[in-house]
Amino acid sequence: MVPATTTRETHGKPLPQRLDRVIHDRTRLAILSALAASEPLAFNDLKSITGTTDGNLSVHARRLEDAGYVECDKLFAGRTPRTEFRLTAAGRRALEKYLDHMEALIRATRKKG
Amino acid sequence: MVPATTTRETHGKPLPQRLDRVIHDRTRLAILSALAASEPLAFNDLKSITGTTDGNLSVHARRLEDAGYVECDKLFAGRTPRTEFRLTAAGRRALEKYLDHMEALIRATRKKG
Repeated sequence: MVPATTTRETHGKPLPQRLDRVIHDRTRLAILSALAASEPLAFNDLKSITGTTDGNLSVHARRLEDAGYVECDKLFAGRTPRTEFRLTAAGRRALEKYLDHMEALIRATRKKG
Repeated sequence: MVPATTTRETHGKPLPQRLDRVIHDRTRLAILSALAASEPLAFNDLKSITGTTDGNLSVHARRLEDAGYVECDKLFAGRTPRTEFRLTAAGRRALEKYLDHMEALIRATRKKG
């Protein structure tokens, strides 16, 4: 049980600590935001949109796959291998929830500032 | 010079990469948000509001001091030492800018989603 305190934004954890840490990373937030805008996206398109490197994109895309937020298809365009990413339903829900928490945090910070 | 691309939100870096990385950490965001709400705050108050540990708060408060976003006064209440934190003007501006960027990112993600 979490003791009630008047210093918390709501019951339980403070708002910033309720931000999903899988999503909160800047590169992963960029990947999810890009996929929310248009999907599927190929590896190179995602790399260009998020402004990151091959290695960094691979690591963070894998982390999002492991969380069940993103799925990855390996296809062939003729003989050329092509990797496509899309959001899962769980990933879209988790992103929405993250954005809701962040909006609440912005409102709370501005209101009192 | 940054080449123009149609895949960027605006000129230059994509929106998530323009989020101030000093502020984006969840514990540091919690500290700044708490100080925007009421200041000065004593170490123990800040610890309670942000829901973190002594060690974690010390590390992140130091990082915010090093960035010039927070200042720290060491006082005595009778014989009891007391550390108080407040936002600097630069810290308040940087937090506002971060919140503006985050709002733009939320709008861009939701509009297209």
